[in-house]
Amino acid sequence: MNVLVIGANGQVGRNVVKELAASNHEATAMVRKQEQVDKMKELGASKVVLADLEKDFSDAFEGVDAVIFAAGSGPSTGADKTLTIDLWGSVKAAQYAQEKGVKRFVQLGSVGSNDPDAGGEAMKPYLVAKRTADELLQATNLDYTIVRPGALSDEDKSEKIEVSLKGFSSLEGRSIPRADVAHVLVDVLDRNNTYNKVFEVLQGDQPASEQLNSL
Amino acid sequence: MNVLVIGANGQVGRNVVKELAASNHEATAMVRKQEQVDKMKELGASKVVLADLEKDFSDAFEGVDAVIFAAGSGPSTGADKTLTIDLWGSVKAAQYAQEKGVKRFVQLGSVGSNDPDAGGEAMKPYLVAKRTADELLQATNLDYTIVRPGALSDEDKSEKIEVSLKGFSSLEGRSIPRADVAHVLVDVLDRNNTYNKVFEVLQGDQPASEQLNSL
Repeated sequence: MNVLVIGANGQVGRNVVKELAASNHEATAMVRKQEQVDKMKELGASKVVLADLEKDFSDAFEGVDAVIFAAGSGPSTGADKTLTIDLWGSVKAAQYAQEKGVKRFVQLGSVGSNDPDAGGEAMKPYLVAKRTADELLQATNLDYTIVRPGALSDEDKSEKIEVSLKGFSSLEGRSIPRADVAHVLVDVLDRNNTYNKVFEVLQGDQPASEQLNSL
Repeated sequence: MNVLVIGANGQVGRNVVKELAASNHEATAMVRKQEQVDKMKELGASKVVLADLEKDFSDAFEGVDAVIFAAGSGPSTGADKTLTIDLWGSVKAAQYAQEKGVKRFVQLGSVGSNDPDAGGEAMKPYLVAKRTADELLQATNLDYTIVRPGALSDEDKSEKIEVSLKGFSSLEGRSIPRADVAHVLVDVLDRNNTYNKVFEVLQGDQPASEQLNSL
């Protein structure tokens, strides 16, 4: 499949492009700036499209078979960008996907968004944005999968994970390498058993393929 | 009907309580602070419940037949509160309504939320929050009506309005008194023709009842 990676220049997004390049799929990397193009090619993107998530980015969906939405405004900007990028960017992406007949949509979510009220004052606005983006994707007729990783680390890919459909009861002291999150986002693409599912994922001691099979 | 007014101490909310008191309905005013209780009684609320929109406010739904959601964080707080109050408060209210079997849900929206991208940098985050709150309400099985007024004024109630299902092509120089918005929010409660509809409203030259009948 030709997979549009939205947020390709993000920390998870770069890993997704790399993972796609090593898979039987192809990556179309969507980035905002010309100077990011070379980096994307280096990571193995077959195609790079320049587009701004805060404007009309429907052109990026031409010839695309699936979408991985991995964009986020990050912690250095305010809640206004959380609204316009994390939430509205996802809503617009799902809308374009429907308009262009792209059925498969994999979204990078976040643990904690099953209950934003429990997230504490600082995290709650972000978790509300992620949760509502997920709910609006679930209300579409797209074949979605929503992947909610725990705390992200920069460790090497382990391909050992633990998944939970109902959500982990404790996240304490646990995390997951960004490279493993990227692996999961790509690996679910053609796993029908993950269609229309939302799950949490952490580093674990089981092979990723086995854990994803269990969903 | 016993109507729960969420955001009763807001500028539109106070008018809603007054309007309900003058109607064949009863107002249960939801406010956050003890010192707001007397004002609500003065305005004609049959009952006042103390609850915080940012916490669990499910108790406020006991014995309620309908909800008017008129809460907003206002312009003096940031986009974090837009997420936790305007958006998440509405999502939670709709969730509680469903859990408690309250079918009728009237939501105060905003013009411009049909196209947040056209709203300009400053308004876009707010319009995204209002739009997504509306979409999530529309995805429930509640009997909703979403009322999107234009610029609000403090003029006296005129009961002369203009409504538009497809949205006004120009809002320039136009507004609507808060008292008229409150009148519309209350008047649609038992108008079946407004169920599951979203419309914009401005001050106009037609009687409100006639315009609401036309929806």
